[in-house]
Parts: sequence; C-alpha cells; structure tokens
Amino acid sequence: MAENTAGLRGITAGETALCTVGQAGTGLTYRGYDIHDLAEKAAFEEVAYLLLYGHLPTAKELSAYRERLKGLRALPKALCEVLERIPADAHPMDVMRTGCSMLGNLETEADFSEQDWHIDRMLAAFPGIITYWYRFSHDGVRIDTDSDEDSTGGHFLHLLHGKTPDPMHVKVMQASLILYAEHEFNASTFTARTCASTLSDVHSCITGAIGTLRGPLHGGANEAAMAMIEDWQSPDEAERELLGMLERKEKVMGFGHAIYRKADPRNAIIKAWSRELAEQVGDTRLYPVSERVEAVMEREKGLFCNADFFHASAYHFMGIPTPLFTPIFVISRLTGWAAHVKEQRANNRIIRPSADYTGPELQAWVPIEERG
Amino acid sequence: MAENTAGLRGITAGETALCTVGQAGTGLTYRGYDIHDLAEKAAFEEVAYLLLYGHLPTAKELSAYRERLKGLRALPKALCEVLERIPADAHPMDVMRTGCSMLGNLETEADFSEQDWHIDRMLAAFPGIITYWYRFSHDGVRIDTDSDEDSTGGHFLHLLHGKTPDPMHVKVMQASLILYAEHEFNASTFTARTCASTLSDVHSCITGAIGTLRGPLHGGANEAAMAMIEDWQSPDEAERELLGMLERKEKVMGFGHAIYRKADPRNAIIKAWSRELAEQVGDTRLYPVSERVEAVMEREKGLFCNADFFHASAYHFMGIPTPLFTPIFVISRLTGWAAHVKEQRANNRIIRPSADYTGPELQAWVPIEERG
Repeated sequence: MAENTAGLRGITAGETALCTVGQAGTGLTYRGYDIHDLAEKAAFEEVAYLLLYGHLPTAKELSAYRERLKGLRALPKALCEVLERIPADAHPMDVMRTGCSMLGNLETEADFSEQDWHIDRMLAAFPGIITYWYRFSHDGVRIDTDSDEDSTGGHFLHLLHGKTPDPMHVKVMQASLILYAEHEFNASTFTARTCASTLSDVHSCITGAIGTLRGPLHGGANEAAMAMIEDWQSPDEAERELLGMLERKEKVMGFGHAIYRKADPRNAIIKAWSRELAEQVGDTRLYPVSERVEAVMEREKGLFCNADFFHASAYHFMGIPTPLFTPIFVISRLTGWAAHVKEQRANNRIIRPSADYTGPELQAWVPIEERG
Repeated sequence: MAENTAGLRGITAGETALCTVGQAGTGLTYRGYDIHDLAEKAAFEEVAYLLLYGHLPTAKELSAYRERLKGLRALPKALCEVLERIPADAHPMDVMRTGCSMLGNLETEADFSEQDWHIDRMLAAFPGIITYWYRFSHDGVRIDTDSDEDSTGGHFLHLLHGKTPDPMHVKVMQASLILYAEHEFNASTFTARTCASTLSDVHSCITGAIGTLRGPLHGGANEAAMAMIEDWQSPDEAERELLGMLERKEKVMGFGHAIYRKADPRNAIIKAWSRELAEQVGDTRLYPVSERVEAVMEREKGLFCNADFFHASAYHFMGIPTPLFTPIFVISRLTGWAAHVKEQRANNRIIRPSADYTGPELQAWVPIEERG
C-alpha cells in the first residue's frame, strides 16, 4: 500500500457543508460561521440548531427549540434500570455507549422521517444518562433527570451537582460544548457516516461514534492532561517534571494537532475561560501550572495547546470529576455526528473501500489429523 | 469530489492478510483457504481459530478451543437483567448491539493483552444474548444459556428450541456461520477498523460493527428475501409476481453483489443445504419457489444469487424465526470483525480521511434579533 494512503490521510471520502478545519492554517467554521463568533456570541442550542437544521435560528425558533429539548429530558424507566446495573468502576464512555444503544431499543427510529425527533431526544437525554449513572453508582441517589435550566450546559451541571449552577459556569459549559461540537471527518464522525451509509438507524450511528471517540488517540486528551497537571504543585515543579518527560520522550497530551499547523483556534477561547474560573475559585496552582506547561512546550518543542489542554483545568474548577470529561465531549459532538448522519443520508453511497492483500497465496487443504 | 471516490470505492484503506474477495472474479478465501474447502471440511470453530489465531488448529488445539468457548457461555446476571428490559418488538440487531455494549460495561477490556479472551467470550456469549432475549420477551422463559453442544451452530439451535438439535441442522448452521465469517473491508468491518484505529476497546469496535451491519444495504438481505418468497404459494405465482416487481423496478433482495461479477461462491454451498433441508421437512413450496426466482432473475436480469438468497429458505426450514437471521450473521461475522481489529491494532494509523467542502463561504455574524 502506498504509505500516504494509510489511515486515508488526505484521501477525500465524501462531501460536507458542515465544517472547515484548518483552511488557511488555523480556522474552524461551522456552516461558514467562525468558531470565535459562535463561542463568544451564540448559545450551544443555537449552534446545534445551525448544524442540524442548516441556518441560525431566529429568537422565536431558538426559544421553541429550547422548549422542545426541555420536554425531552426525562429518561424512560427501563433505561434508568439499565444504568443502575452498570458498576461504578465502568468506563464512563461505555456508559454513554450502552445508554445510547438502549435508548434506541426503547425508542427505535422507524424511518428517516423521524430522525430529527430522535436526535433532539438524544441531545436532551444524554446529560441525564451520564449523570443518572454517575450519581446512582457513586452516591446511591436516583436523580430526577428533569431540570428547569434553559441551557444544555446548565442542565448538565444542575444534574451533576444537584443545584442551580453558577451563571459563569453555565457560560463556560456552553462555550465548551460549542467548541467541541463539530470537526469534519474525524474518526468518530467518519464511523457515524460509514454506519449511516448502510442506511442503519441513527442510534446505531451515534453508538458507533461514541465507541470510536472513546479511544485514547481521539477523545480523552483532556482527561490525560488533567491526570498530568494535577500531580504538580507549582509551575517550577511542572517545568522540571515536564522536561523530564520530554527527555524520556513521553507523550504529552493536549498539544499539537493532526491538521492545525500553527494554533488550535479553540485554545485561546477555553484558556480565557480557565483563567476567569481560576480567579473565581482562588486557584493559585492549576492555572499557573497550565500556563507554564504551555510556555515550556512552545519553547522546547514548538508545540501549541489544542482544544483539550485548558479544558482540563476549566472543567476541574467547575467541580466536574475527570472521568466525565469525555462524556461531555459526547454531549457536544452528538450535534456534529447527527448533522453528518443527516448529510450522508441525503446523498448516500455505501462506504466500502478496498484493501491491499498481504496474506498467503491459495493454500491446499490439510486434514486436521495431518496438521503439525 | 471525483465521482469515483464516493463511498471510497476502489480506494485502498489499508492492508489485510485475512481475506480475498473476488480475485479472478468469483473466489473467496480466508487466509488463503478456499471457501469451498472451509465450508465443506471445517468446523466453524476451526475457521474462527484460523481467522483469529492465524493458522488452522491441530486436533488438540481445536478441542481445547471448543472447551474454552464452552466455558464462556453463561451470561452475567446484570446482562440478563438488561436483556429482560428490552421489549419483544425491539429490533433484534439493536438487542445484539446493546447486549455487546453491556457486556463491555461488565467485563471491560483493560488493555490489548486481554483481547483474545474478550473475543472468545463474545463468540461464546452471542448465541446466548440473542436467544435469552428472544425466549424471555416472546415466551416469558428465562433460559439457561449453557448447553453441552460442542459447536456454535448447535449451541444456538439448542438455546433457541430448548432441545438437542437435529445433526443435519447443526451441520448446516456451522456451514452457514463459515460462509458469513469474513468478507474483507465491507462497511461493518471498516467501522470496526476505524473504531480500533483510535485504540478504543474491542467491545466498542464490535458494537459499532453490529450497528453498521444492521443497515438494509448491508445485513438483512436474507430477511428481506424471506419476506418476499414466503408470500408465494407456487413457482408459477412467484414468477408472475417477480416479473411484476421487475416491471415496477422494485428492488429484489438477495441478488447480485458489489464485487463478485459472475457468481457468489457462497451460493452453491447454501443452496445445496437448502435443497437437503427441503427434502427433510417435505417442503414442496419454498425451495421450488426459490429455484424459480433464481432462474427468472438469471433469465431476465442476468443476476446471480448472492450468499443471502438461499439462506432464507435454509434458516426457515430449521425453524429459525426470520427476525433472527441477521443476528446469526453477527454471531458469524464477529470472527472476521475481531480478526480485523487485531490486525488494525498490530499496525495502526488512525483512520481520518478528508472531505470536500461544499458549504457556504465565511459568513458575517448576525445578532439573533436581526435574523429574518
């Protein structure tokens, strides 16, 4: 196989009107809108609407959309009973995968005319799925997965902490959900499209995407970044330890990107929020440590922070347990995955590549008693 | 996008030593062994071993492998409790998807050194997952998912019917499982490999593959063939109705193939078994109808039966309910999927293709109150 087709790098696998990544080196746009505008000025539900329905909603449309989502938050009883049977030490991404799959067993997409309902239902229900399991398995509490929060970010925090969240935390969560919502033909999105290309149901597509995002080469970098920085007590210790890691050629998570060359446009946005949160909680360790790590990586390796690095401290300052970082990614990216499923269905050809055969030539059969 | 890259048709997406499809027009080999030899002379567990471990087992290895699989058939209690919460009218492929995902929540692959154990566990447990749900939801019975059957095909039939199966039926099931075991970079296998390429766990890979196989453009053709032929009372009626379908340009399932040009090598094998089963049960309708359909399709459209068409009648003669046809495909193809996951892991690069952007140019932000 030609080396440059490994992993299909640079090979066009389809068309999309949803996203550009790294055009002119640094940009990220959703349906033509710059990520900076979206993260600063839009609500997450506004971005979800843009991705799923093709245009920014009017005030009336957004309000109706939020009401619709609020009406779809309660989980079916049988789904709660399934979540109660998943142990506390399960991988939270496996909880999302099983939760999404089970939802599809209870509310099956009968035909594609129903797709929007099921997508909105998942968008409304996913924060409840992960927090219901987490609170039940860790605290023995059966939470009510309804809340009166208007926003998805606020709803998640409300369910997790059992109270009305701080307004700044809601803003940060909403911005974070916008930053992670869509990123072209990454591996999980491509899984969703491959599944969609057989004309399978939307729950199968999203379940497959969740399983793909679970891999440490895809989701999970913000969790790994957190595991690294939380060990360090000061910027000086961080620098010392990090230099040791680099000398030992250990992988440092949260830096560089397969497509962006100079910077990840999402970093400055979440970094600014992490700084504000640090001030709010009076942090004098995690944020300065993070800044030092950024400076050392730039100086030593010429590598920039990607979207994940400052997400670690930002989520931590809001009291979010580290194992829930990647499930938040799911709650956000669901919108991009689902928009891609809709796009694939609208102009489908089954995705069925070829392989280069590297195995043995035709073998003569050997009866089992003659095998050595 | 160049038209010929749609669906990645003809694009090499990686290497495999597992399978050749359609080389020289009609062939199918697993690790170099011809499908005719395998289906006629091997046990399904022998083929699974070949695919998963790279060589045909000795008699001792095969015997030990079968004992290992027999020891892994009992389902965890929490998995049974989940299956009991899936309604009788759920899609059986969704049951397989959720069952596999839940198994991964209860027995998570901690690292890749465990992969073989988890794959063998799935191979042993999948017949129990589908039959436990089916018998509980339809008959209210909690079956024991252990049996003393040596073969996977016999085990499935035993659990489904609650008794030792007819020896000829065991032979047919084993041959059928061999025929469906592996087929290169088809859509579900490619999903498994894309998921594996992020270094996700094996349950995520197989769960994603199940969801992809669920689509009517991929699995399900034998179910659709059954739905068609069971309506016809005689070969003459079949011919009349089929000609009407062709005139109305309706899709006839179970014919033709994306890669094979002249014949599907699997057809003759399952057709011969279907004929023997027809004689055994004294069928004078379904088999003659199937033969007539084959002849009419050849005469009118130049199309040949693929692996699926005579599977419909064969499964039916063994008393298998039509909705379980595609789950049997899962029990079989699991071996190919898992072998591909192992192969991808052994020489990995994340699968991340590009997309052609067809969306709007950079858009100026419009505040919500100014949107029309």
